[in-house]
Amino acid sequence: MKKIAVDAMGGDNAPQALVEGVNRAVQEFSDIEILLYGDEAKIKPYLTAGERVRIIHTEEKIDSDDEPTKAIRQKKEASMVLAAKAVKAGEADAMLSAGNTGALLAAGFFIVGRIKNIDRPGLLSTMPTVGGQGFDMLDLGANAENTAHHLHQYATLGSFYAENVRGIKKPRVGLLNNGTESSKGDPLRKEAYELLSGDSTLNFIGNVEARDLMDDVADVVVADGFTGNAVLKSIEGTAISIMGQLKKSILGGGFKAKLGAWLLKDSLRGLKNSLDYSSAGGAVLFGLKAPVVKTHGSSDAKAVYSTIRQIRTMLETDVVGKSVIEFSDAKE
Amino acid sequence: MKKIAVDAMGGDNAPQALVEGVNRAVQEFSDIEILLYGDEAKIKPYLTAGERVRIIHTEEKIDSDDEPTKAIRQKKEASMVLAAKAVKAGEADAMLSAGNTGALLAAGFFIVGRIKNIDRPGLLSTMPTVGGQGFDMLDLGANAENTAHHLHQYATLGSFYAENVRGIKKPRVGLLNNGTESSKGDPLRKEAYELLSGDSTLNFIGNVEARDLMDDVADVVVADGFTGNAVLKSIEGTAISIMGQLKKSILGGGFKAKLGAWLLKDSLRGLKNSLDYSSAGGAVLFGLKAPVVKTHGSSDAKAVYSTIRQIRTMLETDVVGKSVIEFSDAKE
Repeated sequence: MKKIAVDAMGGDNAPQALVEGVNRAVQEFSDIEILLYGDEAKIKPYLTAGERVRIIHTEEKIDSDDEPTKAIRQKKEASMVLAAKAVKAGEADAMLSAGNTGALLAAGFFIVGRIKNIDRPGLLSTMPTVGGQGFDMLDLGANAENTAHHLHQYATLGSFYAENVRGIKKPRVGLLNNGTESSKGDPLRKEAYELLSGDSTLNFIGNVEARDLMDDVADVVVADGFTGNAVLKSIEGTAISIMGQLKKSILGGGFKAKLGAWLLKDSLRGLKNSLDYSSAGGAVLFGLKAPVVKTHGSSDAKAVYSTIRQIRTMLETDVVGKSVIEFSDAKE
Repeated sequence: MKKIAVDAMGGDNAPQALVEGVNRAVQEFSDIEILLYGDEAKIKPYLTAGERVRIIHTEEKIDSDDEPTKAIRQKKEASMVLAAKAVKAGEADAMLSAGNTGALLAAGFFIVGRIKNIDRPGLLSTMPTVGGQGFDMLDLGANAENTAHHLHQYATLGSFYAENVRGIKKPRVGLLNNGTESSKGDPLRKEAYELLSGDSTLNFIGNVEARDLMDDVADVVVADGFTGNAVLKSIEGTAISIMGQLKKSILGGGFKAKLGAWLLKDSLRGLKNSLDYSSAGGAVLFGLKAPVVKTHGSSDAKAVYSTIRQIRTMLETDVVGKSVIEFSDAKE
């Protein structure tokens, strides 16, 4: 039985979206058990799953504007903190939250703890591509600064993830850079290029540019946290803006445009689905002793369900356990 | 009379797109004169403008895969090099090329030359926003590394550009960061934040995130060249991918979808136009003694025309001359 600790109180739609996502996941997967942390009176109205769900009542919670590290230290009974402590104590195998990202990173670092020899866990997410296969990118912003050594560790972690969780054999690893030639980039990128191309355990395909990410140019893309964060937000922001403009130009286009949109609605839905981040699951803080996964603050029940499914796959393939062995043994 | 040196031989559609853009610009603007550098026999078939255009014949040209600095030094008679030398010698007031970006940056630095006290000229471009006003972002990749001092200079240069060329009073300047709070970012961003907020000549509005760029969150966005380049390419790549997917889902959607698309075509064209970089002009290597402007390698005649119009505005408002005074006097 895989035990997953869920912070029921984080995110814009808490606890409803969290609880409804749990309902669906418990029904779908007979090998998971959920520990739900939060306010019992607020959780119960939405809870339909009768078995394999246990509520651990607490009234304290971390808010979206709390200062992360301080919140983790001072709100000792917060739902997120209790979930992390359950993982630390071995009562749960993984945790999920839709709450304050900074606080979740802090809970991951300070409570769950890093894998030995991994210096800086990175935030990894599976992003959509035109071809539908997607790519895993890290670090998406767990760190504001990284060394070439960190980027090398991200390449190994990302390959482990793509191979185990997404079933991609010998995942193609690309280094995000400002050009594809091997000589490109700042000193950080040049040093990382050397480390990556010298590591025969990786299927390193060289530098990749942000322009080509959605064209399935690589299965794993390695970036420092600052750039990774900027690229993630650029892609999201552009996609949201364009879809919004499309909607606006249809609504403002009169009867003819509305009829056209109605005729096109299957095609437009297909486009929307191919850009849908929610079905890909959440962002994994990878490099910790257990899966700690952040799902978007605006997640609905479907996104929560998808993230639980993702965590279940991480536990089933033991991708974290394999990473622990890889880094504890080989890299000492 | 404003004299503009045009490298007729750079870019995917050279010399046709360059010459046709020149034809249109000369017809439209009676106060410009064009010096066209390139192969006379290849230029002449497209040239219809009878006056205020002079061809300076040369058979040498820089190719897109030439190593930039080496090409500038060794191909002394290349059309791009001769155009830069004309600016240096005062025979032309500005230059335009659609060719090898790295070579144009090198020609700008080494031949045209930097403004006194500006350490690292930055690549500036006006990017589209949902509201249609656009924003100016720099550095988009002239440099792989920048200091906080460079970012401060970019804020001043960007403000000058937005105010003079785009007519925006007291342009709102944002610092691209991984969060909007003043405490966000790596040491570079924190130091830049201090410099920008301490400069009362700027209308600094604080940190901005890549997610909000297309929502008119700022008029000028300041970034280091590595991140700026990644963000530019992410936005472009995402826009191209989504528009491509939209087209594909329409073409693959059968008769109903095609009829829908036909009814929607005005709305879709509006969307395409609002994402159209070509009408905004080219990327300015800003911080040099004269306007050196790169238009996209795939530019058509309309994009070339728009870039000449942009250069004309830069010359009319004397934005470079004002920058020279600002940096030569005040910042010593």
